[in-house]
Amino acid sequence: MSDRTRRRKLDVKNGRVDLSHGAGGRAMAHLIGEIFHEAFDNDLLRRGNDQAAFDVVGGRMVMTTDGYVVSPLFFPGGDIGSLAVHGTINDVAMAGARPLYLSAGFIIEEGFPLADLKRIADSMGAASREAGVPIVTGDTKVVERGKADGVFITTTGVGVAPAELVLSSELARPGDKVLLSGFIGDHGVAVMSQRQNLAFETSIVSDSAALHELVAAMVAAAPQALRVMRDPTRGGLAATLNELAQQSAVGFRLDEDAVPIRPEVAAACELLGLDPLYVANEGKLIAIVASEAADTVLAAMRAHPLGRDAAIIGEVIADDHHFVQMTTSFGGGRIVDWLSGEQLPRIC
Amino acid sequence: MSDRTRRRKLDVKNGRVDLSHGAGGRAMAHLIGEIFHEAFDNDLLRRGNDQAAFDVVGGRMVMTTDGYVVSPLFFPGGDIGSLAVHGTINDVAMAGARPLYLSAGFIIEEGFPLADLKRIADSMGAASREAGVPIVTGDTKVVERGKADGVFITTTGVGVAPAELVLSSELARPGDKVLLSGFIGDHGVAVMSQRQNLAFETSIVSDSAALHELVAAMVAAAPQALRVMRDPTRGGLAATLNELAQQSAVGFRLDEDAVPIRPEVAAACELLGLDPLYVANEGKLIAIVASEAADTVLAAMRAHPLGRDAAIIGEVIADDHHFVQMTTSFGGGRIVDWLSGEQLPRIC
Repeated sequence: MSDRTRRRKLDVKNGRVDLSHGAGGRAMAHLIGEIFHEAFDNDLLRRGNDQAAFDVVGGRMVMTTDGYVVSPLFFPGGDIGSLAVHGTINDVAMAGARPLYLSAGFIIEEGFPLADLKRIADSMGAASREAGVPIVTGDTKVVERGKADGVFITTTGVGVAPAELVLSSELARPGDKVLLSGFIGDHGVAVMSQRQNLAFETSIVSDSAALHELVAAMVAAAPQALRVMRDPTRGGLAATLNELAQQSAVGFRLDEDAVPIRPEVAAACELLGLDPLYVANEGKLIAIVASEAADTVLAAMRAHPLGRDAAIIGEVIADDHHFVQMTTSFGGGRIVDWLSGEQLPRIC
Repeated sequence: MSDRTRRRKLDVKNGRVDLSHGAGGRAMAHLIGEIFHEAFDNDLLRRGNDQAAFDVVGGRMVMTTDGYVVSPLFFPGGDIGSLAVHGTINDVAMAGARPLYLSAGFIIEEGFPLADLKRIADSMGAASREAGVPIVTGDTKVVERGKADGVFITTTGVGVAPAELVLSSELARPGDKVLLSGFIGDHGVAVMSQRQNLAFETSIVSDSAALHELVAAMVAAAPQALRVMRDPTRGGLAATLNELAQQSAVGFRLDEDAVPIRPEVAAACELLGLDPLYVANEGKLIAIVASEAADTVLAAMRAHPLGRDAAIIGEVIADDHHFVQMTTSFGGGRIVDWLSGEQLPRIC
């Protein structure tokens, strides 16, 4: 850039986003250059095209997209920026794929503090570098005050999957085991603890994390045995398993005692009237695995820091009703149904 | 899906989006199934995974993302849905690439009419089928009333480019010609004509269109001669050329008489106090082309319906100031500067 646009024009400390920052002119160029390019710094982005171009080897590619509208934007253990990076990497990884590149689209409310935007962008950049998955293209829109809520981020990820590895929602079979990579409910409780109308004290932090290396370890351990992987985000374990039950036309039987829940999360859920099975996670995965390889995959998970507390929590059963059943601690049973309404709005 | 979820639950005619439609449960499954899967219908989407997987041949891939916040959502010649499809296809195509797949992320305001959402989704589906670029994965979030403005859509596109073709913003060289594919300003004027505080009568419709086939014809005509292609959307021709001037470290000299502007657009811009050079286009492209091949590329453009009114509008010049100059009809000259503020908020 020449001196004509290189001049710093943003007052990041005290300034706010205005409509000109989304108008395609010089103000937008400054915002993108000083906030996003600095935070995400990489060769592809720096080229300044409206798209990123990169070489790929042929094979199976995976593409996923997710919008992030979490409220509040900053919460214990993360923020909307790190969440957007982790969540999208995870959706790529759940196909057994290696995430390669991310894009990020920002919709920003007029008046949003530039300092907060920079904090979010820096957090995205850090999460992306830590995961080794660069943000190579993006877009910025600004809407009038009162027409959005601070900032929304939509991230898209692409990755490559080994040709011989096919993981898909319809592949769960009766007899397969259900593996869970760790404690559930942390993310949802951490976000809820910051809501203005609720704010309560808790030591719980979001589990937001990029799971692609855990997935790579699982794939390396038993590629033929993996049927389905899913990250139980919105709607929690309950929604994810009910969806899989439908898609694979099976049922599930879970063992309540085997599902890892931290006592603090259980207590917070009790307080809030929530069932932790329905609470969102952002750094956990469920794997449906052929029975004979379940212990092998479990061992591979436990050997990775993000799968240390992994457990076999149940199994796939034949069930024409596609129910998710749970054997409770007291020896009884219950149906873990779909959440019919809204439990936790804007949790991710 | 079993009968348990197959039952129609949406009252598309009279219903409205509520927070449960974004919560990850059964209501969301219904919304996605009945609105989006029906509108975008394709094998990859129907599989119901959180990501789409597809085979690609190796080579140069292109990825682009864009958020759409246009207001109003419906305008003469299109709507936010068709715009989101066309705009993202065009950003892939501007790299000389063939668009392969799209993703779509929706952020919807609570209370948004399901009928409008279906109209938008159907329009996206139609635009995507017409262009031959399927929407293979997506995401839906719902935020509380007053925290968004109807619906925002973020689309991401991936495509493949011939390995030997490199188009990039920094490749314009003095002596190159500037080609424009047709009339400018139609989209911006069509959208402005529908704004509640402005509403005026005009026969102008948005030029929103997918340009990838026009691009393919240009690439076929003179692959070695193409330096840069850009679609002059937000900020119009002026912003795009100023950005390119910076990125290629050159200047531009345009001939005002050569820039195609419809009399109705010129009249509407006069009325609104706008300069058509700054008004957004959604179905036009600028190509920077080596001088000796400019006529060949122009002929290829004019042979395509979307390039019928193409023209050579100026040339690249050496200029350390990176100015965009224009020779006016009266023989004078002016500098076409960056737009410093906001001209047309939420035009795309």
